[in-house]
Amino acid sequence: MRIPIECDGPVPLYRQIQTFLQEQIQSGALLPETRLPATRDLAASLGLSRITVTNAYAELEAEGLVYTRRGSGTFVAPPLPDLPPSEEERSAPADWPLWQQQLLTHSWRSVQGDLDRMTASVSRPDAISFWGGIGDSEMFPADEFRKTLQAVLRRDGSECLGYGDRCGYPPLRATIAHILTSQGVPTHPDQVLITSGSQQALALVAWLLLRPGDVVMVESPTYSCAIDLFRSLDVRLLGVPVDEQGMRVEQAEDCMRSNRPRLIYTIPTFQNPTGTCMSGRRRRQLIALADRYNVPILEDDFLGDLRYEGCAQPALKALAPAGRVIYVSTFSKMLMPGLRVGFLVAEGPVYERLLACKRVSDLATCSLTQRALEAYITVGRYQAHLRRTCQVYRGRRDAMLAALDRHMPAGAGWQSPRGGLFLWLQLPAALSVSQLLPLAAEEGVTFAPGSIFYPCECAQEYVRLNFSMHPPDVIEEGVRRLGRAVERCLASEEGEVTVPRPRAVVV
Amino acid sequence: MRIPIECDGPVPLYRQIQTFLQEQIQSGALLPETRLPATRDLAASLGLSRITVTNAYAELEAEGLVYTRRGSGTFVAPPLPDLPPSEEERSAPADWPLWQQQLLTHSWRSVQGDLDRMTASVSRPDAISFWGGIGDSEMFPADEFRKTLQAVLRRDGSECLGYGDRCGYPPLRATIAHILTSQGVPTHPDQVLITSGSQQALALVAWLLLRPGDVVMVESPTYSCAIDLFRSLDVRLLGVPVDEQGMRVEQAEDCMRSNRPRLIYTIPTFQNPTGTCMSGRRRRQLIALADRYNVPILEDDFLGDLRYEGCAQPALKALAPAGRVIYVSTFSKMLMPGLRVGFLVAEGPVYERLLACKRVSDLATCSLTQRALEAYITVGRYQAHLRRTCQVYRGRRDAMLAALDRHMPAGAGWQSPRGGLFLWLQLPAALSVSQLLPLAAEEGVTFAPGSIFYPCECAQEYVRLNFSMHPPDVIEEGVRRLGRAVERCLASEEGEVTVPRPRAVVV
Repeated sequence: MRIPIECDGPVPLYRQIQTFLQEQIQSGALLPETRLPATRDLAASLGLSRITVTNAYAELEAEGLVYTRRGSGTFVAPPLPDLPPSEEERSAPADWPLWQQQLLTHSWRSVQGDLDRMTASVSRPDAISFWGGIGDSEMFPADEFRKTLQAVLRRDGSECLGYGDRCGYPPLRATIAHILTSQGVPTHPDQVLITSGSQQALALVAWLLLRPGDVVMVESPTYSCAIDLFRSLDVRLLGVPVDEQGMRVEQAEDCMRSNRPRLIYTIPTFQNPTGTCMSGRRRRQLIALADRYNVPILEDDFLGDLRYEGCAQPALKALAPAGRVIYVSTFSKMLMPGLRVGFLVAEGPVYERLLACKRVSDLATCSLTQRALEAYITVGRYQAHLRRTCQVYRGRRDAMLAALDRHMPAGAGWQSPRGGLFLWLQLPAALSVSQLLPLAAEEGVTFAPGSIFYPCECAQEYVRLNFSMHPPDVIEEGVRRLGRAVERCLASEEGEVTVPRPRAVVV
Repeated sequence: MRIPIECDGPVPLYRQIQTFLQEQIQSGALLPETRLPATRDLAASLGLSRITVTNAYAELEAEGLVYTRRGSGTFVAPPLPDLPPSEEERSAPADWPLWQQQLLTHSWRSVQGDLDRMTASVSRPDAISFWGGIGDSEMFPADEFRKTLQAVLRRDGSECLGYGDRCGYPPLRATIAHILTSQGVPTHPDQVLITSGSQQALALVAWLLLRPGDVVMVESPTYSCAIDLFRSLDVRLLGVPVDEQGMRVEQAEDCMRSNRPRLIYTIPTFQNPTGTCMSGRRRRQLIALADRYNVPILEDDFLGDLRYEGCAQPALKALAPAGRVIYVSTFSKMLMPGLRVGFLVAEGPVYERLLACKRVSDLATCSLTQRALEAYITVGRYQAHLRRTCQVYRGRRDAMLAALDRHMPAGAGWQSPRGGLFLWLQLPAALSVSQLLPLAAEEGVTFAPGSIFYPCECAQEYVRLNFSMHPPDVIEEGVRRLGRAVERCLASEEGEVTVPRPRAVVV
């Protein structure tokens, strides 16, 4: 394979290889299932080091353009099933100015956006969704919140409608500091920065600390919108595997020694998507490692309060010396995602830098919703709502576990999460989630394919199920449909003929 | 001067020089008013091209660390007056991990943040502020908006509290498309992306299109938070001067030919801070230039609706072929800044990329406020509010013009803006805004120093006054105080003794 390489240009060598292959794949010059040259051979033929080629292949794999079969090499990936053309693909590229056409090949493409389109294209009107990342909207306290908003607007008038304090509404920061302190994370209000949801808190940290080419260490699998965020900044992701005790920290050390990451991103409690909690021992190891290699830790505690059993574990923030950990959380999962109120806790010079990033990002977070949220929490409604929610979601988790027991064929595996929203289902061996997805859509059930949560490799054997969104009877029906789709998938794997069954109706 | 340079490292040469000098200045090794070597001499002694050294000096000037005196060279700037120590300076740096200490020297520092602290430190409790960038909060329709919120929450219930459509609430996008189309910018709802204020729209475009080292062409002076945004991304700014007809487009062509900018950022209508409008001829020239050099235009129309006289001019977006201009606007200035609802209009592949950036930035904009805003506009309240606001602000502009006539000494200059919020005041020759600021604070009036709006050079002779924030009698008193401060400043320039006068009381 002849790849034109410019050795003294501004573009890194691995990126030149990646771009060339990407264009070949996207133009169709390299067909699906084509085997790429072995990294050793390509490196030799280009006169480059093997690691350069390996990096280029890893980027392509992260983009979903190639996949690796252990022992047989790297292959061009098949296109996503049934993906309808996007707006930009429907219009003739020649209509757009050159700088827009260049975006098509030279900028990052959101996996999330592609999947949204795909799901929309396959779903039936009566489909049961286990897909989303939030709780049940029926549980949102809309009426209570309406009354709180009224009271706040009457009390504060037009003051609610200005920019307010750029760090966030001071009484809300004080309330958050109080809650965190009572949970074992001693926090001063001056260390709290209110953000537009926890996603913005992650984005501020990424924008401040990362530059193209930097390396970020993450759990593998991890939160898909964090993967998208990091990839939008042209950083390289290193995934550390997760087991029942959370991130396998002993593997993290090798990774840190050889790759010198600029940031560690972790979800230690009710990890997304696996639902696991990092053990106390590993929490301490990770902090010690980060200190030794001088790497900041970004701790995402997006639903730490949604615990259904077991004791609360200390946050990394509580275990680490001052200034090591940037802690991020939100009210989206526990209360209402649409409010877009999250926060981060940081101390030291990084706080003021993050505030400056917040200002250039959107000046300030909506003052009215901050005030309403503060009022809602202060009168004790939040705590009552949280208790109610935990009780309901615990019941739904148990309903899903029971339904899985009933409807999943042998070979599927899962564990009971102690909190959160998600259950991580392993498909029977030899089944792939990209085969299952269209069959499940036919049966009338959707879920998040596990592959979108992997930062580097493209694991096909997992499914993330959100158990919080429906009452137990709907969960039962949804899991029944899923079980049927898995069985049909197994049957077609074994060469049997698949007979479409009559469609089920939601009970 | 011996500067250690690593010629084949990853850090650009100009950046190495900049960092070295910055550390010397911040550590005190280079004292204020020290003359730096001439660019030609330093380049020769380092064996580099002169443009490399010029770029390093330009960055230092943009940081406010050095200033240029025409004909005499480049000098280390004096420290900002009376700047109280920030949180990070008060705490011992050795307490923080190394990566945090590195932030102090190696990351961008917000001019805005420094100035906020300075203003807070000098202002009197009875000070009259002409500083802000928003309208009068007394004009915000808090009560009407409260009723609208109620109605929307009763109507939509918990639907208001989810993420909603990631592009924005569809009826609001339709309403915006309708308004823009009626104003001569034909817009389809699918081209509208709702953002958290127009600042976020600017940020999304910057994050998508710019990478460190890229060049952005802007008006000089321009909106200070856009300068901060671009500088946070390590891009180089090129300022094109502004006159009464807006950006001097004939100078822009030279700039584009030699510097190949990646983006043109412009505020063609009621420019911030000068209040000028770009002429129709220049609008067309700029579009033709952008097309010739294949550069996207980011058009910031943050208060195009606040016009007090003259005919509306067509937006660049309306004049340019499809896909050339990304148009940004907001409801913050006309209605309520705290809502944080703005929008951008774009078509072609860039729309989907910007949506992906929006998702990684904060997932979605608050659904409840979008719905309330849509309801507020649809029942015609917005248009009525806008008419009322224009009438009041026109009167305030006239009051400030009359007060300036009465209280400004000879040599000061200003023009009457035809709309917007700002008046751009030129100080009498030889006066500098950094001298004026503490005296004005003593007299009890604050304003935005013109220097913060300059992307490269550090012009000292301008002041931005917001005329919309107070009723006419307070404007009169504020301008009287300002006139007194200017006269004291002139007197001290001429060597006279400054006698503090008794403090005035707000009428």
